[in-house]
Amino acid sequence: MTHNLADIQRLLRTWIVEMTTAAGSGHPTSSLSAVEAMSVLLFGRWEQNKAFFHFDPAQPDNPANDRLIFSKGHAAPLYYALWAAAGVLEEHELMTLRRFDSPLEGHPTRRFALTEVPTGSLGQGLSVGVGEALSLRAQGSDARVFVLLGDSEMAEGQVWEAMALAAHNHLNHLVAIVDVNRLGQRGATMLGHDTETYRRRAEAFGWRAEVVDGHDSDALAAAYMRALASDEQPVVIIARTIKGHGVSFLEDAQGWHGRALTPEELVRARAEIGVVDRAARGTLAVPEAGESGDDTSSLRGAAVRKHCCDEAILANEAQDCVVGAAPCVAPSRNDVDRLASEGIALPTYTVGQEVAPRVAYGETLAALARADERVVALDAETSNSTKAAAVKEYTPAQFYEMFIAEQNMASVAVGMARRGLRPFVSTFAAFLTRAADQIRMAQYADVPITFVGSHAGVSIGADGASQMGLEDMALFGALRESIILYPADATSTAHLTMLAYRAPGISYVRTTRAALPVLYGADAVFEVGGSHTLRTSAHDVASIIAAGITVHEALEAADTLAHEGINVRVIDCYSVRPLDGATVRAAARETAHVIVVEDHHAGGGLGAAVCAALSGMATKRTHLCVRKAPRSGTPAQLLAYEEIDAAAIVHTVREVVY
Amino acid sequence: MTHNLADIQRLLRTWIVEMTTAAGSGHPTSSLSAVEAMSVLLFGRWEQNKAFFHFDPAQPDNPANDRLIFSKGHAAPLYYALWAAAGVLEEHELMTLRRFDSPLEGHPTRRFALTEVPTGSLGQGLSVGVGEALSLRAQGSDARVFVLLGDSEMAEGQVWEAMALAAHNHLNHLVAIVDVNRLGQRGATMLGHDTETYRRRAEAFGWRAEVVDGHDSDALAAAYMRALASDEQPVVIIARTIKGHGVSFLEDAQGWHGRALTPEELVRARAEIGVVDRAARGTLAVPEAGESGDDTSSLRGAAVRKHCCDEAILANEAQDCVVGAAPCVAPSRNDVDRLASEGIALPTYTVGQEVAPRVAYGETLAALARADERVVALDAETSNSTKAAAVKEYTPAQFYEMFIAEQNMASVAVGMARRGLRPFVSTFAAFLTRAADQIRMAQYADVPITFVGSHAGVSIGADGASQMGLEDMALFGALRESIILYPADATSTAHLTMLAYRAPGISYVRTTRAALPVLYGADAVFEVGGSHTLRTSAHDVASIIAAGITVHEALEAADTLAHEGINVRVIDCYSVRPLDGATVRAAARETAHVIVVEDHHAGGGLGAAVCAALSGMATKRTHLCVRKAPRSGTPAQLLAYEEIDAAAIVHTVREVVY
Repeated sequence: MTHNLADIQRLLRTWIVEMTTAAGSGHPTSSLSAVEAMSVLLFGRWEQNKAFFHFDPAQPDNPANDRLIFSKGHAAPLYYALWAAAGVLEEHELMTLRRFDSPLEGHPTRRFALTEVPTGSLGQGLSVGVGEALSLRAQGSDARVFVLLGDSEMAEGQVWEAMALAAHNHLNHLVAIVDVNRLGQRGATMLGHDTETYRRRAEAFGWRAEVVDGHDSDALAAAYMRALASDEQPVVIIARTIKGHGVSFLEDAQGWHGRALTPEELVRARAEIGVVDRAARGTLAVPEAGESGDDTSSLRGAAVRKHCCDEAILANEAQDCVVGAAPCVAPSRNDVDRLASEGIALPTYTVGQEVAPRVAYGETLAALARADERVVALDAETSNSTKAAAVKEYTPAQFYEMFIAEQNMASVAVGMARRGLRPFVSTFAAFLTRAADQIRMAQYADVPITFVGSHAGVSIGADGASQMGLEDMALFGALRESIILYPADATSTAHLTMLAYRAPGISYVRTTRAALPVLYGADAVFEVGGSHTLRTSAHDVASIIAAGITVHEALEAADTLAHEGINVRVIDCYSVRPLDGATVRAAARETAHVIVVEDHHAGGGLGAAVCAALSGMATKRTHLCVRKAPRSGTPAQLLAYEEIDAAAIVHTVREVVY
Repeated sequence: MTHNLADIQRLLRTWIVEMTTAAGSGHPTSSLSAVEAMSVLLFGRWEQNKAFFHFDPAQPDNPANDRLIFSKGHAAPLYYALWAAAGVLEEHELMTLRRFDSPLEGHPTRRFALTEVPTGSLGQGLSVGVGEALSLRAQGSDARVFVLLGDSEMAEGQVWEAMALAAHNHLNHLVAIVDVNRLGQRGATMLGHDTETYRRRAEAFGWRAEVVDGHDSDALAAAYMRALASDEQPVVIIARTIKGHGVSFLEDAQGWHGRALTPEELVRARAEIGVVDRAARGTLAVPEAGESGDDTSSLRGAAVRKHCCDEAILANEAQDCVVGAAPCVAPSRNDVDRLASEGIALPTYTVGQEVAPRVAYGETLAALARADERVVALDAETSNSTKAAAVKEYTPAQFYEMFIAEQNMASVAVGMARRGLRPFVSTFAAFLTRAADQIRMAQYADVPITFVGSHAGVSIGADGASQMGLEDMALFGALRESIILYPADATSTAHLTMLAYRAPGISYVRTTRAALPVLYGADAVFEVGGSHTLRTSAHDVASIIAAGITVHEALEAADTLAHEGINVRVIDCYSVRPLDGATVRAAARETAHVIVVEDHHAGGGLGAAVCAALSGMATKRTHLCVRKAPRSGTPAQLLAYEEIDAAAIVHTVREVVY
């Protein structure tokens, strides 16, 4: 123990109640329960003054730094107080908690630079920790990942997805601390103080687990010491605590979850906490220090993020590089050339050849993975269908089998991306909706992640509605910022996968199950926000705006109509978000009718994007999309049934013309 | 054992390979592994010829019927074959598997009338079973719920959410069967044939668990016998099986997951299965039979769905009643009057009074619950915030605490609705995205469920982005059919909650955290697809289309502008889906500019709905919505920052005018 741990703990408690009262809201009691667990972790010492946690605030991206994730993000007051106790924040800064201009938000966000990942949607932090632990291991770092969980969030299934995967991968450098304070937001948790059941569950999921008194600093220190010695299993410390500990009228009391103390209550609380040394500070061990004899830290400092900061990749467009948190994430626009010059060519396809876009995706991803060691493929037991399995052939270490646990998969990707890997996350488009909340949170993490949904739309055929991605574009389109790319053939799949690879934030690539004829030659150019006009004339009576499989239906319709002397424009809007608004608006100006046709529900897809682009234009429009309850059948039957096939387009155009 | 169980099993195997080969796709091997487990359940008998499973196909909604859910929906060939063996389907019907005009889809759907719930998105079936078991218990039925799970889907966290809740509720009439066939879609599962770990996990989650040889009919029968005797705990039978069992070249073999046999392979398979008695049929025990001495079935037949088919409720609008599967779900339009006449008044509010819509929601739901015993409130540990807790005051049995497990909550609601309850499912709007895939599947279940998201938008203030519902309307708008209602005050919240109550499918009510002045008196009329024009004149220069909290900003803006002599129209589009297109289009015709203002991201909300309604109209438009990264702050600061407050509206209108 450092000599002043008790002083630090009293100061943390004082700051917690002060800052929440200053803010007028917040979660003081959930913070108070974890004061000992977190202060011992950061500032405690064991034999020969060895630290449990190593972190250099001056070099937050040092790969040898340990990582701390507050999965119970509502304990943000404690989180910030810890950094203040470490000397990183000033006391007066704590008092800005929750204010508009303060980086100290109600739940930790990336606006406070040391926040590893934003939290606040419970049950996601352990998965992020799994992603970080997997990344650190892959990068040769010996650092540890510590995750603080609340007991309420143990009801979230995602926690158990993470538990299972961590044990399966023998992540012995992952340490979870569960703050079992018995009370959730509105009352007792399912298990209350039944710490033994938590222990049994964790052990059954393959973890080393132990129960400790979460307010006994020595017991906690001993538990951390044992945790650091685990050589096979991840470790969970189940800390029995009292919510509101240290302030009698808050202790184990209902009705205090999201409530700050009044000024009068604050006076009482401070009196109970006692005399505080406001100068009390702890010392964070930095990884470079290297405690002698600490075999678990022998590699500290020596570890390098070997796959990051590839200068060749950065040469052309360094300004795209996100500095600080996740450096080097934006590769160059010349990647295709570079890859080719290095003899690792992206796949090319011959016009007319029949190739499923999902196959082209797999081939492209495999090439990317060979060229860039940061590229990793995560897939939820569907890699033989999404074709992500192609990565396994040459770079098996860059493929992560995530089993059927999409929530965990998405949050693991966040953790990996934060530690410098470049995740491509795939499953059936329909099943990405399983991770909607995790994707929602990923948008706040400042990380590049590409999600890839195969089996889009009713065109998958006989498997039926449960397997059809019909809301997937809406899911990604609802984010504040995202890129949605929807290739119509193998060539465009290869190019769009490259564009996604270069994208800085959340990108989505929608692939198609069916084999489709290749439309584009190797020299075709694709860009985010682009489109290709595949048919046009001086006398187009209508414009067909399509993407993915419906591009082929539109082309067939155009050919049929051409035989009748009717010319239509066909635009492949492969970039659904951002849409090529200029081209779409030109089509609306130059043709009498715009027909959007897509294999997706009416909301949130291509039709919505076109609608927004044409806002304020009087051009007549028709939106062909999935409007009837889908079912099993052949792809052709289903496209016809939903009236999104060539015949439906022809019919619509004829109605316009005649 | 019935004398011909082995005959039935051979016939089931034959049908499975025949029907999938006829379809050209499907999952024969996943079906073959569960043949013994399911045939023993349906057709097996124990001492004194007692049945394990009781179901009357002639009365599928008999509340005394046991329920069978195939959570591993890809075993649909087995599912249909079982009903054929029970005499409900003909052999020739099986051979229509996966055809467009057949109700026998690739995964079970409600188009086959005996399908309890559609499945195919793995990991959801057990939660549905929990919902059914809770409903049956509430309704006084002694029936059991059997759920067949695959081993791959045990990686889904939702399964463990369901496990925890089932044990917590002592659902001893819930029996899960896990078909541990070791192989998933693309290879071995995480645990392979490690059945002991499955057992330990299930036991740690509070279940009675036993491992059996899943191809030993006698062992299975004994396990079912013990399962039916459980008086406290739910029971899981962990069946060790071989994928493809019964056909040597399919057994435990990779690469056969979603693949049908060729005609030549079919010949070999049939030869291995051996001579088949195509007349072999099993006998389903019907609940009325009542085996004497079977104490577990003593209440069978006597149980009634006491809360369903309330004639008073149905009197006015029987034609809205969904017949068959879920009768009596649509209450009358005169409910408000009826409730009033019964002395159970919906809450009323005084214009100008400050009431948070979430508070009005709780009060309305409590009144509904008192009036209709079928109404149940499910909440994920947030009921003191969503105000669903109000139900507990008078009708505590109609409140279900679901803890922080939104996925399970949504699927439990599906099960409850299928068994005749009327669920209202609430949590923070942001956290409903956690259940996006479950809500997606709910749309195929033909059930009425109302989801209620509180804490919508940036106006929640200091808690920050993780707690803000900014994609929630897009989530529900992406469904093929849904109703989205967004009240601006307490009165409209009460009315819109009633409208949701009467809606037949998926409805969503978006409530607001902040106290807002009441706008509407008790005589205001609200309808699905309606709106209220709150300000209008003969000289409106623009129309402000708002919903929820932005209605108040729009009114303030209109007042400010009126002082400058500028008249604007203000429309409260409380019905976001379906939108009151006629009123919106009239506004676009009659005013020069349409300004949509909403506390939601740009995609999939009110702006998208208005955009679609104004498709083809040249009226200029501005869409004010959440476009900057949200953060902590006061509600007013955040509305201003996002430029969705009165000042932003005033500014926009002035730009239009000058």
